[in-house]
Amino acid sequence: VTLTTDFGSAGPYAGAVKGVILRLCPRAQVVDITHDVPAGDVLSGAYILAQAAPYFPPGTAHVVVVDPGVGTERRILAGVFAGQTYLFPDNGVITLVAAGLPLEELVVVRNPEFLPAPEAPATFHGRDVFAPLAAAMLNGLDLEVLGPQPDTYKLLDLPQPVESSAEIGGQVVWVDSFGNLVTNIPAEMVRHRWHDGAVRVWCAGKAIGELQLAYGFVGPHEPVAVVNSMGAVEIGVNRSRADRALNAGIGTAVRIVGVESQERRLE
Amino acid sequence: VTLTTDFGSAGPYAGAVKGVILRLCPRAQVVDITHDVPAGDVLSGAYILAQAAPYFPPGTAHVVVVDPGVGTERRILAGVFAGQTYLFPDNGVITLVAAGLPLEELVVVRNPEFLPAPEAPATFHGRDVFAPLAAAMLNGLDLEVLGPQPDTYKLLDLPQPVESSAEIGGQVVWVDSFGNLVTNIPAEMVRHRWHDGAVRVWCAGKAIGELQLAYGFVGPHEPVAVVNSMGAVEIGVNRSRADRALNAGIGTAVRIVGVESQERRLE
Amino acid sequence: VTLTTDFGSAGPYAGAVKGVILRLCPRAQVVDITHDVPAGDVLSGAYILAQAAPYFPPGTAHVVVVDPGVGTERRILAGVFAGQTYLFPDNGVITLVAAGLPLEELVVVRNPEFLPAPEAPATFHGRDVFAPLAAAMLNGLDLEVLGPQPDTYKLLDLPQPVESSAEIGGQVVWVDSFGNLVTNIPAEMVRHRWHDGAVRVWCAGKAIGELQLAYGFVGPHEPVAVVNSMGAVEIGVNRSRADRALNAGIGTAVRIVGVESQERRLE
Repeated sequence: VTLTTDFGSAGPYAGAVKGVILRLCPRAQVVDITHDVPAGDVLSGAYILAQAAPYFPPGTAHVVVVDPGVGTERRILAGVFAGQTYLFPDNGVITLVAAGLPLEELVVVRNPEFLPAPEAPATFHGRDVFAPLAAAMLNGLDLEVLGPQPDTYKLLDLPQPVESSAEIGGQVVWVDSFGNLVTNIPAEMVRHRWHDGAVRVWCAGKAIGELQLAYGFVGPHEPVAVVNSMGAVEIGVNRSRADRALNAGIGTAVRIVGVESQERRLE
Repeated sequence: VTLTTDFGSAGPYAGAVKGVILRLCPRAQVVDITHDVPAGDVLSGAYILAQAAPYFPPGTAHVVVVDPGVGTERRILAGVFAGQTYLFPDNGVITLVAAGLPLEELVVVRNPEFLPAPEAPATFHGRDVFAPLAAAMLNGLDLEVLGPQPDTYKLLDLPQPVESSAEIGGQVVWVDSFGNLVTNIPAEMVRHRWHDGAVRVWCAGKAIGELQLAYGFVGPHEPVAVVNSMGAVEIGVNRSRADRALNAGIGTAVRIVGVESQERRLE
Repeated sequence: VTLTTDFGSAGPYAGAVKGVILRLCPRAQVVDITHDVPAGDVLSGAYILAQAAPYFPPGTAHVVVVDPGVGTERRILAGVFAGQTYLFPDNGVITLVAAGLPLEELVVVRNPEFLPAPEAPATFHGRDVFAPLAAAMLNGLDLEVLGPQPDTYKLLDLPQPVESSAEIGGQVVWVDSFGNLVTNIPAEMVRHRWHDGAVRVWCAGKAIGELQLAYGFVGPHEPVAVVNSMGAVEIGVNRSRADRALNAGIGTAVRIVGVESQERRLE
């Protein structure tokens, strides 16, 4: 079982969740993905989860508690994507996992055995709801026991890149904890259009240059565009924070243009 | 075995402790509660420990190294509370565990086999004393082998709430890593006095409103009083730090007053 | 298997590495040393690794990804020091381990089965190269299968202390995450020269006093020199950051002088 939360690694909350899981399922191996998702930041939670969870072994249960709506009407969902089980609040935190992996099963947790009494304080569903659910799933519980299949579930509305005759126009959709700028432009789209990969990337109105194979291909503190570990175009600054150096953030425009053969000959 | 320390997760010290435990007891499962207790902050260590450790399975050994007096005369204690073993410096860090759980056994570590030579450098008892002790306990060592029962042990002197005819007067006794203000007022005291729970909470001279079931019941950046996961009244600010927003900290006064029936009718 | 990286515990990267290792070797026990080595800081990585890794059980595999040169020509090495296996980039991060432990075997990873295609993006060798290598080693792979023995490998060029007739002159070579100043002066050198240990330590031109057995031997916020957990002289400030309080950092001069018998008699 893995944990992805915004509890903060400095507090007791992740420990309490681990304790409950191990108490109810002593043979569990509890692995931290992170407890330092920025508090209540569902978008960051979605990216972090999608970049780590799919690499775990088949059958892993992933517990996701980035849940600013805890105690309100938001639902708790349990779903199977590509052979692994995810337990998550219905707030869009599953968006990037769902975008990349086939959904095989999905239920809304309605079984009152797994939900707190309505009048109970609801400050810590991670410990009181998610952890017992995770332990029950590790102990072999069928998802159907938890509740019915929902008609729909929430996905974050992420902007799509736009292709024009001259360029691909995208934007920064996430800033990672190093300040790297993840865009919504798939490397596949760039390769498909300019087969030789000769392109120029612009971000926040500044020329970043061509797509490189690694950060280390530019000098220290120079900006660089790479294909990141998710297969998307990402803008970084070697050994620095790109968000500060380029004064960029979520929503900042990113453009990719092809390099004409002649221009390349003149270079 | 769990670890609760102020070593900092960015340094090597937690890793060295884990290594020693695993070297001496390879079948141990070492679980981090946190290594980011503020350095030397015994009060925070006490709260963090009490909120996480009791949830672990019976028989768990908890190693607590928040130990600003390392190398001085402070004693090391080993105790069993509610079926789990705690290994801790005698500086009060056990206070909140001891307040909530029955003490079943307690010894002072005096056995020289487990203590460093008096003239040895004593900068890292976590690795050199606590870790071997924890491994020995996991390997089945009887606590009596470690040393005698102490006459007394140190508990932090936490202020108690005061009930007057008009109100309950308490104070902030701990600020968690999110800036939430934990008070010394048990929810049970409030419920016992005002059975219908219709109360008004004041903190730092500001009206916080009634007791809510969850942070999400107020708007973003609005203050809120809840019953926290320890059963105490806690003041937060939805999606912000209450300590900064309310200019409050340890010692800040918190008052709870009942709402008259008439007042409620007029509302 | 242990992990020592600069991925940041707030991001997904450590989780992805753990997932790949567990997918390829489900019985592995993955233990974090830290993921919060300052980004690209090979010197800090070297100190952190050497202070934690050797304490683990014989046969442990240590994965070290502090690798600012990822994707460039830098080599990946696998070596056995004192019965434990280390997998690391050839950038000097092994320096402090190599300084203290016997090297038993060393190979350069050249086997293309374990290396990415040259034209592949190379932003995340931790997940794509180091993790599969670690799993293969845990599954019993012989190091010779990975590649040939190198002629040489990179070690950081750390300054050595200088002994004159009057004193030992050294310098700060690392600042830990608490701001403590680790020097290049071995305690053994001090003890060997002044057998009774009566010395005075100077750092950044300020008198720190004699060598103490623990931080707690001086008052709060007072500077103190101790023998640290690596056996080196270290300058701290009790309950504060020495780097800020003494305005010191890597390269700051540290001097140790003996106390004359007469001077001591007058004290």
